Amino acid sequence: MIAKTPKPPYYAVIFSNLRTPLDEGYALIASQMSELAREQPGYLGQESARQELGITVSYWESLDAIKQWKSNSEHLIAQEFGQKKWYKAYTTRICKVERDYSFEAEL
Amino acid sequence: MIAKTPKPPYYAVIFSNLRTPLDEGYALIASQMSELAREQPGYLGQESARQELGITVSYWESLDAIKQWKSNSEHLIAQEFGQKKWYKAYTTRICKVERDYSFEAEL
Repeated sequence: MIAKTPKPPYYAVIFSNLRTPLDEGYALIASQMSELAREQPGYLGQESARQELGITVSYWESLDAIKQWKSNSEHLIAQEFGQKKWYKAYTTRICKVERDYSFEAEL
Repeated sequence: MIAKTPKPPYYAVIFSNLRTPLDEGYALIASQMSELAREQPGYLGQESARQELGITVSYWESLDAIKQWKSNSEHLIAQEFGQKKWYKAYTTRICKVERDYSFEAEL
């Protein structure tokens, strides 16, 4: 769903990726990593979609929170599996969200 | 595909959206808007995926390029249709990409 984030500024990590055909453990570890991210200090929310390209955006209070999450020991193991098995290519972009606005249709 | 963007800093617009069931003209206008975006000054690339949630990220050289694109007259009409017909809800986030890194598997 669309993440409910606080007033900017906050931070976003855009993870754009192409998968390999290998599935070994991917779905399990991906959902474990989503759960684990949620428990991290400074975590604000997450959005995901995949067609040919997969895009996951996670939102964070600070660059420091992102750095902590990147170096989380279980996450490091998942990142290693990611490079060895699951991802053909990815780009991770660390961003400062400067403005945002939302629309919701009337029911 | 994963957008090839220059060295940071550059800007990203994260458009996270939920569609209505209405399809009237959506696919046509969405692809026209992608094409039109590509022709704008300062456009750097675009990534898209949709499952239940749709995420489109477009990349830009500057905040000014984003502002110009937001106020493009054809795009304004599409935005109005978007609110009236196609989108149940969306959030647009304007971000400064501060760092990025990429991985590509060896063949």
